[in-house]
Amino acid sequence: MWFTSDNAGPAAPEIMAAVAAANEGHALPYGADEITARAATRLREAFEAPEAAVHFVATGTAANSLALACLAAPWSAVYCHEAAHIEVDECGGPEFYTGGAKLTTAPGAHAKMDPAALEARLAGAGAGTVHHVQPGAVSITQATEYGAVHRPEEVAEIARIAKAHGLPLHMDGTRFANAVARLGCTPAELSWKAGVDALCLGATKCGALAAEAVVFFDGDKARAWEFELRRKRGGHLFSKMRFVAAQMEAWLTDGLWLRLAGEANARADRLAEGLRASNLAELPHPVEANMLFPRLPRAAHRRLHEAGARYHFWPQPASLEGADEEMIGCRMVCHWGTPEADVDAALAAIRG
Amino acid sequence: MWFTSDNAGPAAPEIMAAVAAANEGHALPYGADEITARAATRLREAFEAPEAAVHFVATGTAANSLALACLAAPWSAVYCHEAAHIEVDECGGPEFYTGGAKLTTAPGAHAKMDPAALEARLAGAGAGTVHHVQPGAVSITQATEYGAVHRPEEVAEIARIAKAHGLPLHMDGTRFANAVARLGCTPAELSWKAGVDALCLGATKCGALAAEAVVFFDGDKARAWEFELRRKRGGHLFSKMRFVAAQMEAWLTDGLWLRLAGEANARADRLAEGLRASNLAELPHPVEANMLFPRLPRAAHRRLHEAGARYHFWPQPASLEGADEEMIGCRMVCHWGTPEADVDAALAAIRG
Amino acid sequence: MWFTSDNAGPAAPEIMAAVAAANEGHALPYGADEITARAATRLREAFEAPEAAVHFVATGTAANSLALACLAAPWSAVYCHEAAHIEVDECGGPEFYTGGAKLTTAPGAHAKMDPAALEARLAGAGAGTVHHVQPGAVSITQATEYGAVHRPEEVAEIARIAKAHGLPLHMDGTRFANAVARLGCTPAELSWKAGVDALCLGATKCGALAAEAVVFFDGDKARAWEFELRRKRGGHLFSKMRFVAAQMEAWLTDGLWLRLAGEANARADRLAEGLRASNLAELPHPVEANMLFPRLPRAAHRRLHEAGARYHFWPQPASLEGADEEMIGCRMVCHWGTPEADVDAALAAIRG
Amino acid sequence: MWFTSDNAGPAAPEIMAAVAAANEGHALPYGADEITARAATRLREAFEAPEAAVHFVATGTAANSLALACLAAPWSAVYCHEAAHIEVDECGGPEFYTGGAKLTTAPGAHAKMDPAALEARLAGAGAGTVHHVQPGAVSITQATEYGAVHRPEEVAEIARIAKAHGLPLHMDGTRFANAVARLGCTPAELSWKAGVDALCLGATKCGALAAEAVVFFDGDKARAWEFELRRKRGGHLFSKMRFVAAQMEAWLTDGLWLRLAGEANARADRLAEGLRASNLAELPHPVEANMLFPRLPRAAHRRLHEAGARYHFWPQPASLEGADEEMIGCRMVCHWGTPEADVDAALAAIRG
Repeated sequence: MWFTSDNAGPAAPEIMAAVAAANEGHALPYGADEITARAATRLREAFEAPEAAVHFVATGTAANSLALACLAAPWSAVYCHEAAHIEVDECGGPEFYTGGAKLTTAPGAHAKMDPAALEARLAGAGAGTVHHVQPGAVSITQATEYGAVHRPEEVAEIARIAKAHGLPLHMDGTRFANAVARLGCTPAELSWKAGVDALCLGATKCGALAAEAVVFFDGDKARAWEFELRRKRGGHLFSKMRFVAAQMEAWLTDGLWLRLAGEANARADRLAEGLRASNLAELPHPVEANMLFPRLPRAAHRRLHEAGARYHFWPQPASLEGADEEMIGCRMVCHWGTPEADVDAALAAIRG
Repeated sequence: MWFTSDNAGPAAPEIMAAVAAANEGHALPYGADEITARAATRLREAFEAPEAAVHFVATGTAANSLALACLAAPWSAVYCHEAAHIEVDECGGPEFYTGGAKLTTAPGAHAKMDPAALEARLAGAGAGTVHHVQPGAVSITQATEYGAVHRPEEVAEIARIAKAHGLPLHMDGTRFANAVARLGCTPAELSWKAGVDALCLGATKCGALAAEAVVFFDGDKARAWEFELRRKRGGHLFSKMRFVAAQMEAWLTDGLWLRLAGEANARADRLAEGLRASNLAELPHPVEANMLFPRLPRAAHRRLHEAGARYHFWPQPASLEGADEEMIGCRMVCHWGTPEADVDAALAAIRG
Repeated sequence: MWFTSDNAGPAAPEIMAAVAAANEGHALPYGADEITARAATRLREAFEAPEAAVHFVATGTAANSLALACLAAPWSAVYCHEAAHIEVDECGGPEFYTGGAKLTTAPGAHAKMDPAALEARLAGAGAGTVHHVQPGAVSITQATEYGAVHRPEEVAEIARIAKAHGLPLHMDGTRFANAVARLGCTPAELSWKAGVDALCLGATKCGALAAEAVVFFDGDKARAWEFELRRKRGGHLFSKMRFVAAQMEAWLTDGLWLRLAGEANARADRLAEGLRASNLAELPHPVEANMLFPRLPRAAHRRLHEAGARYHFWPQPASLEGADEEMIGCRMVCHWGTPEADVDAALAAIRG
Repeated sequence: MWFTSDNAGPAAPEIMAAVAAANEGHALPYGADEITARAATRLREAFEAPEAAVHFVATGTAANSLALACLAAPWSAVYCHEAAHIEVDECGGPEFYTGGAKLTTAPGAHAKMDPAALEARLAGAGAGTVHHVQPGAVSITQATEYGAVHRPEEVAEIARIAKAHGLPLHMDGTRFANAVARLGCTPAELSWKAGVDALCLGATKCGALAAEAVVFFDGDKARAWEFELRRKRGGHLFSKMRFVAAQMEAWLTDGLWLRLAGEANARADRLAEGLRASNLAELPHPVEANMLFPRLPRAAHRRLHEAGARYHFWPQPASLEGADEEMIGCRMVCHWGTPEADVDAALAAIRG
């Protein structure tokens, strides 16, 4: 019963098979191979973006940091939600890669940046005054760090504000697949058609071993070359790139990525429904992707632990010692391979 | 007939199998899993270094750059050979990760740093004078970029000079396995016993998909923690670290790494012997690892190309157009899976 | 009638005379001269800190950024008030010099960091977890950006929290002289005796042309050398350092610094008293140094502008067009040379 | 008898007077004052470059590093002579400000980069290949670190090579005034008319306290703004900029800068003539600016030291102990205020 994170489970068999298949024969290194070319084409097709510049890396922090470094100058501000992964969970990766840009946060329900708060930040930024860092880029996360999903019109509203200030919009799409699977829209509608300039598309948390794509939709050649140099310099250009690209190609083939994301979402839904039915849990955030943040009585947590469930208290730390009825928050994450039986067993433990 | 590089061939079946096996069940992410722990233990055993700090990354540039960043301050000089990979082939990765350290080069035959030249550089470095960058670290490559192998006493001589100036010795061990396989010494004799403080041990070019280890032999806890933070911040902490570690574990198990390296070396030997016997080639560097840098008459290059051989002119570029007898250099690299038949076919083409 | 800032007025005659006197004969460059040695000694005496490491630079941003770079790692958080100069007004200088540290802000009345807010930030920092930047340093400003003065016990309370988390305390002392002059305590009581580890002591805003000192009270030799290297590398090591040091020596001689600061404070007091007496102004912050942030009816602003007064709306921008009675904030800064007549003229204009 | 450096002597009286005059009344800070505007205009006039972007800083390292950071990307190579100040004497300032660019050196007589060596470096740079840092900028020093002066046609030859590779040409003009005074050409002929894109014009070593200008001749507005942000962020934007600008204005007024440089050159000539006449000295470099690098018998050095002459052995260190007749190199620098009597006394001591 693992609900710790979507990176604790196995990779999908289709992806493992693709990696094995990529091991046939010889291939040009550093991304000059055919698999890499095919994976990029597949991605451009999936996003209806034939001109997009597509680059592959192996971690989400690398994807986000490298993308932001191409968008925001060292003396600039990157606007994001105060719970954003780039702000909280990358140990300063964006600061490192940008050469010291300042992440500037805004609040907002369910880890969606409140548009009015963003407007206020930008209005007070002191653009054009040398004493202050200059507005550089806006970044949102899809799905958010609290498991909510931005609708296309919500993305567009943030994009409109960004554009009004001349700023590019970056999307941390670690769970972009979950959002598309949830909304049933096209990938294009949820990205460039809604105003996203740069998307970091994550496969790692959705069935791959380690594969992320950075997509610049405008296909600007100079920026693409800058990205290539930054990636190499950052140590993220794999000599055997085919093994990364093969994951991405398989993931994007025949809708595998949306199937896997849909499975994870479905498991999260099942868990959410059971929690609601239990009348024991509070769910402070909508369950729209594959993450839940239920608040449960301590006694329920004790039963979960006894049943062998693994997940994180949220916020950490919390204790199993104390009053039975005290409500304690946690994070439970489902993935494509989470067994329904595990969900049901967790629910049974919660109900007691 | 691929002789372009040791990163163009397939990964070894044992390593592919280990990756597949690592996909069973759940595991804690970010290197807290059991496979990562086992791989580190395996490495410590192989190097008779029970206290060593061991970290895994996926590329050689990441390994070198992160290791050097832990050894050399931003205002320091890193001494290396003028042909060193860190100087020539990492697009400034070490400068990026160190925060701007200055790579300072010395010459030396076969890409081994001449000890006297290193002494001279250090004597003129201006240590203690604020105007100059301060000596920070010394780095050598094993096997060298020209395919030569440092003997333990050669490593020790460089280490002696480094220590006399208070500097740590870094070894770029991209082809360390080839060196050990050649010399028949122990890994310890060729690393910490010879004075190496930090070793970047590469499996990627020797049968893995993408797996490198950074080893600090003194096991200093503060530096290990600094490395962890730098690695995370650099985007090199894999959430599914088990897939990197599984490669390393398999590679270090039952001597696979030395078997693979020995195969690559043997193929290089076979090619070198054939070249010498042909009386057509010059070999300006000793063939001690898996790389050869023969100079051949242009006519021989034409025959090689016609036969379908792939390799790089060295230095690049060069042309197949011109006088038959003009000698043109090239680089030919063998790997564990290079067929003997390919070697023989290449030799046949050269002989004409 | 200039109330724009304390950097708009002239340097004190004693300091101009010292600069002229420093131009006699030859001197060793780069701070190896006698004036630099004397100025450092003078500072150590003034602070009863015979072991302190003392370094001179020419701007406050350089002082703060270099000091913080010696205290906080690239992967660390520097805790400061959300209105702190290092956060708002240095265009990312601290991020640049630290190599990308993250300024993490806390609120607090009158630009004093609320100790409880600091505690909360530190409790949630995730120290020891590799995903998050690690606590690095705490920074406070004396006097604050809103003209308030930290009492020694307030400094000590922040220092206690910092120490409890193993963090050094940095003080941006751009207007430290104003604070000492206000409180009548000793410089030592307001700095190292209260737990300050590193003080950036500013003379520029208090009568000098361009002179700041960075003081590390523990006198650690390795850090002092690191500072020297960072300063040189940052382009802040003046070849003719004697001209910077001469300002600092004169400033610290015979109590000039506290006399100048006292003059500035007295003029601010006179202005504050007049404002209070006018019954027209609100003063949201205590007037304890040389800065006032009165809120005045628009009509009073109009009269001030007509009378030729120069000062900044606060926050910017604001307009003279609109309802007479609407209250509009501004910042008015006095300096050592602000004529009493200017203060009185401004007050007369405000009263109408 | 000070021949240590041109930064050991006094500032010119005209410049001291200008600084004193700048202290009258109030002025807008951060370079928005009238003196700064006038000084920039004066410079544009002197260089017949009405469109040039002009920025003031206080040190040569700041000028060079900031200028190069605006010209060369972090992943680029800056080509310079192996004795260049930016390579040897700025403690990695250019690496720091550029974000890790690689200084790549070429040899050449008298610290002038050999054009053929520069061509060779660029031919082997691997431009367009992601593994290598990309050519970023070319930098030369005027006058050179060995006291030689580039003729306009020599500058043009380097500029031609740079342009052929799409690179901007930076000139470290710490002693640009000495070069102009020597050649009798116009400042424009020795800078932008010869292909210089960015000039760091130093007054500090030629009569000022601390004043340098960075000039971008094309007047590109975006780069000018980038420079302003980099300067602020680097802590080099003086709040009381008028005191820096006043030096520059006075220096450029009525030809003061060329008079001061001419005096320094004349003193160097007098010393060189005496040395040649003595038949005791070797002069390995032409004496074209204000620096000499004579090699003298040890006995002559002993007599110089006894007579109280101060200068540096070159290279350092060297000893007065040893054979009388052994030739030992040194550096002797004259400045605008070096008394002829000191020159004559030094010559007398040398002759013995």
